[in-house]
Amino acid sequence: MAKNFTSREEDYSQWYNELVIKADLAEHSAVRGCMVIKPYGYAIWEKIQAQLDKMFKETGHVNAYFPIFIPKSLFEAEEKNAEGFAKECAVVTHYRLKTDPNDSTKLVVDPNAKLEEELIVRPTSEAIIWNTYKGWIESYRDLPILCNQWANVVRWEMRTRLFLRTAEFLWQEGHTAHATETEAIEETKKMLEVYAEFAEKFMAMPVLKGVKTESERFAGALDTYCIEALMQDGKALQAGTSHFLGQNFAKAFDVKYATKEGKQEYVWATSWGVSTRLMGGLIMTHSDDDGLVLPPNLAPIQVAIVPIYKGEEQLAQISEQVAVIKTELEAKGISVKYDDRDTHKPGFKFAEYEFKGVPVRLAIGPRDMENGTIEVARRDTKEKEVLQQKDIANKIEHLLEQIQTNLYQKAADFRDEMTSKADSWDEFKDIIDNKTGFVLAHWDGTAETEEKIKQETKATIRCIPLNGKTEEGKCVFSGNPSKQRVIFAKAY
Amino acid sequence: MAKNFTSREEDYSQWYNELVIKADLAEHSAVRGCMVIKPYGYAIWEKIQAQLDKMFKETGHVNAYFPIFIPKSLFEAEEKNAEGFAKECAVVTHYRLKTDPNDSTKLVVDPNAKLEEELIVRPTSEAIIWNTYKGWIESYRDLPILCNQWANVVRWEMRTRLFLRTAEFLWQEGHTAHATETEAIEETKKMLEVYAEFAEKFMAMPVLKGVKTESERFAGALDTYCIEALMQDGKALQAGTSHFLGQNFAKAFDVKYATKEGKQEYVWATSWGVSTRLMGGLIMTHSDDDGLVLPPNLAPIQVAIVPIYKGEEQLAQISEQVAVIKTELEAKGISVKYDDRDTHKPGFKFAEYEFKGVPVRLAIGPRDMENGTIEVARRDTKEKEVLQQKDIANKIEHLLEQIQTNLYQKAADFRDEMTSKADSWDEFKDIIDNKTGFVLAHWDGTAETEEKIKQETKATIRCIPLNGKTEEGKCVFSGNPSKQRVIFAKAY
Repeated sequence: MAKNFTSREEDYSQWYNELVIKADLAEHSAVRGCMVIKPYGYAIWEKIQAQLDKMFKETGHVNAYFPIFIPKSLFEAEEKNAEGFAKECAVVTHYRLKTDPNDSTKLVVDPNAKLEEELIVRPTSEAIIWNTYKGWIESYRDLPILCNQWANVVRWEMRTRLFLRTAEFLWQEGHTAHATETEAIEETKKMLEVYAEFAEKFMAMPVLKGVKTESERFAGALDTYCIEALMQDGKALQAGTSHFLGQNFAKAFDVKYATKEGKQEYVWATSWGVSTRLMGGLIMTHSDDDGLVLPPNLAPIQVAIVPIYKGEEQLAQISEQVAVIKTELEAKGISVKYDDRDTHKPGFKFAEYEFKGVPVRLAIGPRDMENGTIEVARRDTKEKEVLQQKDIANKIEHLLEQIQTNLYQKAADFRDEMTSKADSWDEFKDIIDNKTGFVLAHWDGTAETEEKIKQETKATIRCIPLNGKTEEGKCVFSGNPSKQRVIFAKAY
Repeated sequence: MAKNFTSREEDYSQWYNELVIKADLAEHSAVRGCMVIKPYGYAIWEKIQAQLDKMFKETGHVNAYFPIFIPKSLFEAEEKNAEGFAKECAVVTHYRLKTDPNDSTKLVVDPNAKLEEELIVRPTSEAIIWNTYKGWIESYRDLPILCNQWANVVRWEMRTRLFLRTAEFLWQEGHTAHATETEAIEETKKMLEVYAEFAEKFMAMPVLKGVKTESERFAGALDTYCIEALMQDGKALQAGTSHFLGQNFAKAFDVKYATKEGKQEYVWATSWGVSTRLMGGLIMTHSDDDGLVLPPNLAPIQVAIVPIYKGEEQLAQISEQVAVIKTELEAKGISVKYDDRDTHKPGFKFAEYEFKGVPVRLAIGPRDMENGTIEVARRDTKEKEVLQQKDIANKIEHLLEQIQTNLYQKAADFRDEMTSKADSWDEFKDIIDNKTGFVLAHWDGTAETEEKIKQETKATIRCIPLNGKTEEGKCVFSGNPSKQRVIFAKAY
């Protein structure tokens, strides 16, 4: 499988592109910028969805579904939001095709079926949702509203990359409505914590939590909280955002509620989302030059079992033994694939599971049958050992936990190693250009400085860390005073 | 809750429309023909999805995701399919908005951002999927492909009704590719069986299985299999379809495979889908003049518990007892809501759970606390009884099974009662106009007769029943010979 596979050192970007294709995760479609998520990739996304959905429900949220289209007049109601997305909107203008009068095998847009008002394919759903919430909210008794939706959205990006940046992507978007500012801010922070917990415990991907600067904020938000991860090439990936929207959308759509005292007040809002971009983060955090590496908590197949045999009789004996082991593993909730295909040799299968990132691969042959043993290979460290079959399910369960922990630790160590402080402009530029990674540096708090640093180095402020130490200092660029270091990096 | 609620007899159609809104299932959105699925409605859809997804996976299918857009040139490749959907396509023509030069608070479509080729918002995905499969299939080893996708689709309907017919709806669409005709036909039938089993066991909705006539076939199919249910107003609802597509799409997209012998052959195809329309069928099959009635297997809340109390002390005692009962019920996988809101009276809560179709409602007050009893009310029959709390979880578990069975039986009895034979044209017209329901009648097999019957009576051939008895007869309309009765009805 790993033949003709570019290594990370050769070309990290190429390595990623090839990996996504060769591991059967996704591919480009006939539609510019839109991807096809293949079954193996989608199975990982389903695991991500299932776990996040569980966490959303545990924190009191419910799912709903809102239209994919937004009438232009609603879309433009919240001006900043509209302005932020206007340049990347797919627009539906007609609702019918007709036979081409010049060629009866072709279709053309029917000019008589022009919509009176254009429809925007949702790039995000605040507008249509707040227009709906208006009808749901009368008094404080109707609050909070804690809705989430799993949906596809479209943002017409010019440069696309599978999972990381595509014209259409899948995501979830939470949209909540609250009676008070405090409650809305709490919700914003709570969902950031949910994202961080998910990233670390399930994706084994360490993240920094912080707040975006004004220039990096979601269009229409008062504050954007984010989790930022570090990829193996030293570039940052924004992995999830949670927005405190203040009363912007309530004002744009005139959504008020009666307080207990009977006063009319505008409602407070949040929105928060993660997308199939997480797949990109997952891939880039752990995978290596031999292919994909998946954390056990999100691997569609956690254990692959390969029989090594000559002839049908041997295979039958091995299969009988494997059935017992498989049942024991499955009883522990471990997903197992027994690969007894006779069309492929064991070596081919080993390479395939390695490339596809299956955390544990077991092999069992005639000698193992005699000795009551089994070969256990782990994907993360490439270690192999021969273990007694006795109590194998417990051993594998434990091993999967170990792999999950190890992947997280490895990524955390890398991230720590790649997090530097810079106290001068030369030092800053040197790190950004050569070592790369996260750079903690003082910043004077102005958009001008932020923009100039970006122009000179391509580094952006990923976030102002939450719970960051206050520390007197001087802006690494302007020399003006600063009270806290912020996180810079080049980013995806 | 049931105040100002139209009865079925007064106006069935109005009853349905009001029920969907008042039970918080869905509502109309600001986008013509598109609905908002509200949390309670979506929770039912999630149950439908989860069960179907399980059944698809058990029959060897995997999920994937394909783009929402289809370039016009791909869309028109399979001519019949394109022709069938051309009149109801939402078309994306531009990819950017810009500030209105005449009003800086407004946006207009940017004429410089016109797409070279228009994109169709998928009304169904055969075209984009078969264009993708072309790249996945080389030889017989790559077959079968058994993919399903959960997605939104858009069909620009002029007359819409919540769940039953909306411009955007949610559905699943299976798309499979096979080496042989036999295998593809088997798949088509297998998925019809899956749909029928789901409808009957989970929705408690009896269905007839059959094949569509040519004029009712899916555009591009050689055969369309369907399940047809009967609503309480005597109209039929097509609840799911499974299409044998032959080699039409393989030919349109040039998808061939190498056989074991090295010959190049076109691939055989099926597609099959059910949608949020099932929600409409579920609602109309069981609900009554007091609101929604949900079968326990799909009810988001299976048991609601209402405390009857005066003062906090009594509530605390009751709550303690309820906690024990709730835990026992949940241990059996029963979903329970304990409603201890102090903002609403028990009577209000009873009415609310009744209207929302919760299968079992329990009430517990001070006298029950003394006597170790609990009041059990079932939604389907409206029966109430006071039971001993002892062993209550087993009793409720059994009761939920009984309700599920009862709902199915009631619907099946109604369907049987409303299924008639007609042997003359007068009899046929009389039944269709007055008794309504399914009418078994002979048909001469011609599209002309079918069309004339439709024009005169509005009845259509719902299906040619699978495993229908052959029986010599004369067409009820033309008098020409016929060998099998087919099912007529007015339909949604």
